[in-house]
Amino acid sequence: MTLSGTSLIGFGRASENKDFFFASSPATGAELEPRFNSATSAEVDKAVTLAAQAFPIYSYVSPAARADFLKLTATKIETAQDQLIERANLESALPLPRLRGEIARTCGQLRLFAQVVEEGSWTSPRIDHADPSRKPLPKPDVRSMLRPLGPVVVFGASNFPFAFSVAGGDTASALAVGNPVIVKAHPAHPGTSELVALAIQESVVESGFPEGVFSLLFDSGIRVGAELVQHKLVKAAAFTGSLIAGRALFNLAVNRPEPIPFYGELSSTNPLFVLPRALANFTEKIAGDLFGSFTLGAGQFCTKPGLVFLNEGQSAEQFAAFLQNKVQAATPFTLLTKGIGGAYRKELKARLGKPGLHKLAQGTPGNEGLLTCVSAAVFQTDVSSLLQNVDLAEEHFGPSTLLIAYKQKQEVLDCARNLHGQLTATVHATPEDLQEYAELIPILETKVGRIVFNAYPTGVEVCHAMVHGGPYPATTDSRTTSVGTLAINRFARPLCYQDCPHSALPPELQEDNPLGVWRLVDGEFTKRKA
Amino acid sequence: MTLSGTSLIGFGRASENKDFFFASSPATGAELEPRFNSATSAEVDKAVTLAAQAFPIYSYVSPAARADFLKLTATKIETAQDQLIERANLESALPLPRLRGEIARTCGQLRLFAQVVEEGSWTSPRIDHADPSRKPLPKPDVRSMLRPLGPVVVFGASNFPFAFSVAGGDTASALAVGNPVIVKAHPAHPGTSELVALAIQESVVESGFPEGVFSLLFDSGIRVGAELVQHKLVKAAAFTGSLIAGRALFNLAVNRPEPIPFYGELSSTNPLFVLPRALANFTEKIAGDLFGSFTLGAGQFCTKPGLVFLNEGQSAEQFAAFLQNKVQAATPFTLLTKGIGGAYRKELKARLGKPGLHKLAQGTPGNEGLLTCVSAAVFQTDVSSLLQNVDLAEEHFGPSTLLIAYKQKQEVLDCARNLHGQLTATVHATPEDLQEYAELIPILETKVGRIVFNAYPTGVEVCHAMVHGGPYPATTDSRTTSVGTLAINRFARPLCYQDCPHSALPPELQEDNPLGVWRLVDGEFTKRKA
Repeated sequence: MTLSGTSLIGFGRASENKDFFFASSPATGAELEPRFNSATSAEVDKAVTLAAQAFPIYSYVSPAARADFLKLTATKIETAQDQLIERANLESALPLPRLRGEIARTCGQLRLFAQVVEEGSWTSPRIDHADPSRKPLPKPDVRSMLRPLGPVVVFGASNFPFAFSVAGGDTASALAVGNPVIVKAHPAHPGTSELVALAIQESVVESGFPEGVFSLLFDSGIRVGAELVQHKLVKAAAFTGSLIAGRALFNLAVNRPEPIPFYGELSSTNPLFVLPRALANFTEKIAGDLFGSFTLGAGQFCTKPGLVFLNEGQSAEQFAAFLQNKVQAATPFTLLTKGIGGAYRKELKARLGKPGLHKLAQGTPGNEGLLTCVSAAVFQTDVSSLLQNVDLAEEHFGPSTLLIAYKQKQEVLDCARNLHGQLTATVHATPEDLQEYAELIPILETKVGRIVFNAYPTGVEVCHAMVHGGPYPATTDSRTTSVGTLAINRFARPLCYQDCPHSALPPELQEDNPLGVWRLVDGEFTKRKA
Repeated sequence: MTLSGTSLIGFGRASENKDFFFASSPATGAELEPRFNSATSAEVDKAVTLAAQAFPIYSYVSPAARADFLKLTATKIETAQDQLIERANLESALPLPRLRGEIARTCGQLRLFAQVVEEGSWTSPRIDHADPSRKPLPKPDVRSMLRPLGPVVVFGASNFPFAFSVAGGDTASALAVGNPVIVKAHPAHPGTSELVALAIQESVVESGFPEGVFSLLFDSGIRVGAELVQHKLVKAAAFTGSLIAGRALFNLAVNRPEPIPFYGELSSTNPLFVLPRALANFTEKIAGDLFGSFTLGAGQFCTKPGLVFLNEGQSAEQFAAFLQNKVQAATPFTLLTKGIGGAYRKELKARLGKPGLHKLAQGTPGNEGLLTCVSAAVFQTDVSSLLQNVDLAEEHFGPSTLLIAYKQKQEVLDCARNLHGQLTATVHATPEDLQEYAELIPILETKVGRIVFNAYPTGVEVCHAMVHGGPYPATTDSRTTSVGTLAINRFARPLCYQDCPHSALPPELQEDNPLGVWRLVDGEFTKRKA
């Protein structure tokens, strides 16, 4: 497949224009061919209009056909994977095994959503039978199930060129429900985006679906994204990225004449609590694994542990010393973009001037002339500095973390209570630790989407029970998740039929349950005929 | 019980102050004793602070204890019902049988949510077991379930002094989940609100729960409501009322530093489509029942059918003539408040000047000196006038409706496509009509929360399958419902535990399923042990 650098508008292509950009190699700083043309406002409108035209057709496609479409897309991505990995490596500098794993994850996600759609119970059918003899008024027959929302906009993320981008979890879940999707490609990996989009486009064609089911739009700036979330035919949007960009888009989405759901996954520091006995028993093991976790993907995971609480004492000192050595010995890391590299460096410098904060160690300096080339760092502060300046607990995207030594249990509980919303919190603890710190878990339960025990938050399992979400600013909507099968519910709403003639009911709500799904019939969960 | 006219802040009372108001009798216009004191800003803060302090306790109360609390509240309301009905009748002029029915509905709702909480499957527990041998990485143990959000603000509605007010569906569902609730009383029925609040307060005391679980605040204006939705410790809000007030509160909620879910049920015209054969076969029956429906509760139901589509011809003329007679013969109606009465009269006048719109009939004039005393009205327009001025399809709260005669099927489909979001749409149709108008239903499915067949949208059944919701401006969040058991999900978010020691897991997620709830275990719905 050859890259054209133009947006995919349904089955067609946008034209080249004066507003274009290039991807750049994070490893060398060099521009990468070809040039990518930003979609014009008319092209944005055309993509959304096609999506709205496709909706009345695609939203009634059978679950089996939607599932086949998702599986076909996975197969096409796998078929193209050598070219995909090569281009993604150029654009992201992420290592080949990681990219190969991410493609496997992406295709696994598509197939998992296909399975959920085929099984069908996610639509939550509910049936309450009529009771004509009820007094004082007869009871009507009432049935409801989840239905798609309409055209959905997905923003590709910089840090996962496959799993949170063009055919990532947001796209897979929105398509699974029956919503057309318009993806705004992340400008850091437009070539990868185009290649994945071509696979989806082919699947739409081969499935016989209308062209508006999928479009991909390029833009190096914010215009296209802003136009998309404000377009009156767009019914929801999903975004993974920075707090500033995400909040700006959220504001546009909720301040529209007709507000729409905006699922933003924005910012998380993912505190890790190493409780006393765990710290004493596994000092170096935890420190070593923590190093692996906060530098994984060059520290560019949403779930990177960026805040580590340790109780003061000899073990904490050993822990810090061990981490210090690991960091000092670390070779430089290549970040995804000049923007991320610049922000990481800026915060490294800024931290040197913050009261109560000091740098424990920094890794081998890299090529200073290359913004993307940075060294790992570990900082340390104390409870009172953190409580006086909660900004210290804000996300620092890249391979750095911050240790906080506390004296008494009450101090760490105070810190936990003062945290902003987080995707995750992690607790390293022995059973005795958990007993002693029993108050900690209920506090964390109000702060995060996921609590991890004696492990690390990076590596988000794609499964039914996963919650990759959490209170603001971790996400703009804590009622949901962007990873795992529960993510499908984001793009659906319940629709109710009262006294509907049987022939007009969707299969999920028909008396004899032809699809064999789980339903709530007169208050009882059952797969039986109603 | 004697009315004190002061807000209930936890177990205490607010003091009297200079900012007070009186309820007024819609039937006579007279002020009703006692005076009600608006809560001060400090009292708003105290109520929310108490709620936030109660949250860590109340959110861990057992499902059985929460269910008992809801049932106790229902019993207390029933015990007080004579006094409640007497006061509500004074404040709302709603007839006694209606109020008695509404109390039954309110207590039924409390008991239904108690049942849902006791049964426990609403928490949607999900368990994915570990697989330590999985390659390339071991699979962790991941479990998740729904947990409460935190303090919830509920705005009492004017049109249902019980079922959508202090102990109405919003309060019942928020309390059922484990969230403390602060109710802003509707100023039209403060005495009714105080009496119901006293019943809840007693239940909180007798249940041994902390006082912050419930507070009731008075205010004749918008200050207290605005302070509540902006308070940083408030985590969600629910509102039933006007588009202008609801959108203003929604804007405050989503533009906070930490945005919160705001469930506003705002405005709906509830189109009713009488298709040709149904119109010809049941002309007078449908016209008569429609009259009953659009004047029920003096036309002050959110689901009042305010827009009626008929195909031109003899049957439509008969239909209109029949309705004309019914309306002309109708005695005056008493609306809930001077504000509602004034707005109804203003729109009656405004409609006389709108091009393409004419008044078919108006009922017996009432006491012109009493703003709340109004007469029913039926208007008529045509398709092109409606398409040129969609404002005609906006909600007109009170006993009025609008007939639209169309010539061809395509015209009514165009009208349907141009409708704003609605709570309901109603279709009167024979099987042949449904075949001929097959395109209509899919259009309505994108516009509404509930489609009613051969019946009327007023009368919203409280059951599992009900959806009282719909696209904006029907509600601010179409992904949910404010009536029926699904409403409980509005006040919860998923929380995930990874590799959690078994002793630290909530009962819903423990291996042996001690509560016997339905769970999704490794992708299978089951009540068995995991």
